[in-house]
Amino acid sequence: MASVRIREAKEGDCGDILRLIRELAEYEKLSDQVKISEEALRADGFGENPLYHCLVAEILPVPGELQEPCVVGYGLYYFIYSTWKGRSIYLEDIYVMPEYRGQGIGSKIIKTVAKVALDQGCSQFRLAVLDWNKTAMDLYKALGAQDLTEAEGWHSFCFKGEAMRELAGR
Amino acid sequence: MASVRIREAKEGDCGDILRLIRELAEYEKLSDQVKISEEALRADGFGENPLYHCLVAEILPVPGELQEPCVVGYGLYYFIYSTWKGRSIYLEDIYVMPEYRGQGIGSKIIKTVAKVALDQGCSQFRLAVLDWNKTAMDLYKALGAQDLTEAEGWHSFCFKGEAMRELAGR
Repeated sequence: MASVRIREAKEGDCGDILRLIRELAEYEKLSDQVKISEEALRADGFGENPLYHCLVAEILPVPGELQEPCVVGYGLYYFIYSTWKGRSIYLEDIYVMPEYRGQGIGSKIIKTVAKVALDQGCSQFRLAVLDWNKTAMDLYKALGAQDLTEAEGWHSFCFKGEAMRELAGR
Repeated sequence: MASVRIREAKEGDCGDILRLIRELAEYEKLSDQVKISEEALRADGFGENPLYHCLVAEILPVPGELQEPCVVGYGLYYFIYSTWKGRSIYLEDIYVMPEYRGQGIGSKIIKTVAKVALDQGCSQFRLAVLDWNKTAMDLYKALGAQDLTEAEGWHSFCFKGEAMRELAGR
């Protein structure tokens, strides 16, 4: 089996990251919502004050074969602030291409996020998952996550576009 | 009726903010989870790279009365990153003291967040609410928010303390 490496994303990975963002949104049946561009990902993640951080999972080439390392998964996160626990991490996206699942790549990404969180003095990290995505839910629970929506009743709300402009009186 | 002002929090408000954070957690029946201190709030929100921003609602003194302005509510937010929509705001906490509810202070805080979001080039802001808090849910919906947990099935997951350390192999 080819070996997999989890590493920090570089600016040059943004094309791959966008490809995977689109695949994830399609998998989530919400692909009409993706409005981001590769240029925005470059500017937002790799400027002076990056708005996000990203890990990529790449398959390393087999020695003797003329094959480039190939990005097959990613975990995109940023720092948030809990008024209970202080600085925390939010894992906005985690995705592994279907043909590379079942090899523990998702778990490797999650473990790397846990390491980053500890190194950065965070005592927790959060993420969101769709209720019909039982495979992902089971994985996160097996790795020790708590479903806060189930346990405490948290619902995620969003003010978007027109509603937000109306609120702001514009 | 006394008039209410929504303004950006200053470092000197951290005592009031902590008082309200504790009241909110108590209201949410989750007060055992508050580990933050006033010192941490000062350091985290008012240093060179603030981890959060905060609005406070204060009752202005009535002319002729020797009364200090009094902080009776707050909205604590930070910037997040959506891989669909780019830079966004997350309203981590919003709270108004029970004796000051029904005067539209919560709506004023939300409207101010919407203005900040637009000024900062964000096309959305998110927040979380407990499913039994029908008053809050109804208010957000009346103001135009969408319940993403209900509409799309999003569940909020969290890796905490021991589970996170185990994941990181520490």
